[in-house]
Amino acid sequence: MEVLILGAAGMVGRKLTERLARERQLGGRGISHLTLHDVVAPPVPRDAPFPIVASTSDFAVPGEAEKLVARQPPLIFHLAAIVSGEAEADFDKGYRINLDGTRELFEAIRAVGDNYRPRVVFTSSIAVFGAPFPDAIDDEFFLTPLTSYGTQKAIGELLLADYTRRGIFDGVGIRLPTICVRPGKPNKAASGFFSGIIREPLNGQEAVLPVPDNVRHTHASPRSAVNFLIHAANLDGARLGNRRNLTMPGVSVTVAEQIEALRRIAGDKMVARIRRDPDPTIMQIVEGWPRNFDASRARSLGFKAESSFEEIIRIHIEDELDGAIAN
Amino acid sequence: MEVLILGAAGMVGRKLTERLARERQLGGRGISHLTLHDVVAPPVPRDAPFPIVASTSDFAVPGEAEKLVARQPPLIFHLAAIVSGEAEADFDKGYRINLDGTRELFEAIRAVGDNYRPRVVFTSSIAVFGAPFPDAIDDEFFLTPLTSYGTQKAIGELLLADYTRRGIFDGVGIRLPTICVRPGKPNKAASGFFSGIIREPLNGQEAVLPVPDNVRHTHASPRSAVNFLIHAANLDGARLGNRRNLTMPGVSVTVAEQIEALRRIAGDKMVARIRRDPDPTIMQIVEGWPRNFDASRARSLGFKAESSFEEIIRIHIEDELDGAIAN
Repeated sequence: MEVLILGAAGMVGRKLTERLARERQLGGRGISHLTLHDVVAPPVPRDAPFPIVASTSDFAVPGEAEKLVARQPPLIFHLAAIVSGEAEADFDKGYRINLDGTRELFEAIRAVGDNYRPRVVFTSSIAVFGAPFPDAIDDEFFLTPLTSYGTQKAIGELLLADYTRRGIFDGVGIRLPTICVRPGKPNKAASGFFSGIIREPLNGQEAVLPVPDNVRHTHASPRSAVNFLIHAANLDGARLGNRRNLTMPGVSVTVAEQIEALRRIAGDKMVARIRRDPDPTIMQIVEGWPRNFDASRARSLGFKAESSFEEIIRIHIEDELDGAIAN
Repeated sequence: MEVLILGAAGMVGRKLTERLARERQLGGRGISHLTLHDVVAPPVPRDAPFPIVASTSDFAVPGEAEKLVARQPPLIFHLAAIVSGEAEADFDKGYRINLDGTRELFEAIRAVGDNYRPRVVFTSSIAVFGAPFPDAIDDEFFLTPLTSYGTQKAIGELLLADYTRRGIFDGVGIRLPTICVRPGKPNKAASGFFSGIIREPLNGQEAVLPVPDNVRHTHASPRSAVNFLIHAANLDGARLGNRRNLTMPGVSVTVAEQIEALRRIAGDKMVARIRRDPDPTIMQIVEGWPRNFDASRARSLGFKAESSFEEIIRIHIEDELDGAIAN
C-alpha cells in the first residue's frame, strides 16, 4: 500500500513518518511506498524498509495537488495547515492554504476518477469550538470558531463529510486536543506554557506560567496523536455513517494537577523551576478555549488517549529523554 | 439608505422588493436607492418611490461582485443560491455559486476598504441539519448537512461569522424553515406537497400527498420570511455577539394537522381534493429532514412567525387570493 502524508515536516507528521518506517505496515497491510510532502523539506528516515520520496511545494497552487495524488495512494494523511496564530495574522494566507489548499486536494482526488477512492485522514482541531461552552463539550455541540484557523478547519470538516457522502473519497476528520508535552524549544504559541511547565524543568531550565493554577485544559501526548491518525486510517468507514468528524479523547486537567503530576514523577526541585508570571493577554486567549470534552463517540470507536497526566509526562520522558530525568 | 438584494428574482426576493417599495423605509431609515440582482432579470415594481436598478449577471464570476458593491450599499440581502435539488444534481455548479459566489461577494466587500462595513443578511437553511435529530433541534445542535446545498449553506454561515468577527462586515445569517404556502404552480421540489395540499385545493385543483399524515415539519409563511429578513436587517449586531447564525421560528405541525386546519378554514370539500399517493422516494428524502426546532434564541431576539397553521393558511388567502376562497 502506498501512503501520502501532507504536512510531513511538522512535529506530528515527523512522528507519524518514523512510526510507519518502524512498523512497515498499517492495519495489516504492508507499506510499499511513502510520499512525504510539505512546504519545507520533510526529514526522511534513514534505512526505511520501503522507498520514501520527499517533495516540497505549495500544495494550494493549482496543479500541485494533482501531482501528489497521481500515484493514487489509497491512504492520504492531510496534516498540512497554516497554524492558528499565523492564520489570524495573515487572513489571505490562512484561507489560501487551509481552505483553498484543502479543496484543491479534495478536487484533485475527484479529478482522478478511475474508481479511485482513498481513505483521507484530516487533522482538524478543537479550535472549531468557541466559548461560551458547557462544562464538557459533547459530540453534538455546535461549531462556532473564534479564529479564522478554527473557521477554516470547520469548513474542511464540512467538505470532508460532503465529499465522503458523494463517494469521492472516504474521509475521517479528527479534532486533536492540545498536544503535550510538545518536544523541542519553547515557542511563542499562546498554548506553549502547557508543555513548557513540564518540558523546561525536565531540561534543567526555568519555565514561565502565565495563567492561574485553576485553568483547565485537555491534553494528549504526541504518541497518542500518532495513534489517533493510525486508528483513523484503519477505521471501518461504515461505522461512521455520515458524521465523519470526531473529537479525540484526552486528559482534562488543571494546571495545578499538571504541576502535581510533575512533582510526583520528578520531585519538588523540578516544580520549583516553574515561575508564575501572570500575562493578561495569554489569560484572555486561554479563556476562549475549550476546557473539557465528552469524547464518547471517538472512545466507542476505539480511539484511546492517556488516562492520566502522569502517563503523559512518562511518555515524554520515554520518547524524548531516553527514559531518564536529568537533574 | 441604499439597499442591494442578490437573488431578487426568487419568490422571497420579489416579496421583499415589493415590501420595501411599499414601506419606503427600513428601521426608520428612508430608502434612497435599490439595486436588484439575479441571474435572470428580476421584476421591478412600478411606481416605486425611489430609483430601482435591476442588473443581471452571474455574481460568482470574478469581478461581478465588485460591481455590485461599488455603490457601497450599507445594507445587502444575500438571497442568491442554487437550490437544493440542483446543487445535488450539479456538484460543480452548486459549489461555484453557493460557496465561491458567496465568498466572491464577501471578498468584494472586503476589497472596498474605506471603512465600508455593511450589514449583510444571508439566508441560510434548515438543510444545514442532518438526521438523526433530537425531538426539537436547539440553538446549539451541530451542523451535519446531508446535501451539498446544506454543506454550502453551513460554510456560508462559518464565513459570515468569521468575516463579521474580523470587522469586514456586520453579518446576520437566518436559517429559513420551509416556506408555506408557496404561491405559484406546483413544482418538482420534494417538499412541494407541503404547500400543494393547501394551495391546489384552494385553487379548485387536486393535490397529491406522497407521505403519511403523521409526517411532522416546520413552516413559516412567505410574509414571515420577509419579516425575518427585515428584522435581521434592523437587529443590533451587539446582541448577537460572535454567534451570527440563527434558526428562525416556525409552526411545527403534522400533515394531519395541516389538513385539519384547511378543513376548519375552507371545509370538507377542499380537503376531499387531497389525493393520497404514497411515494417511497419522497418519503425517504423527507425522513432526513428536521421536524421541529427550539428556536429560543431567535424568538428572544424578536423574530416572530405564525402561531398556528391556520394563520399560515389565512395569510395565503389574504396575500395570494385577495382574501377570498373560490369553490
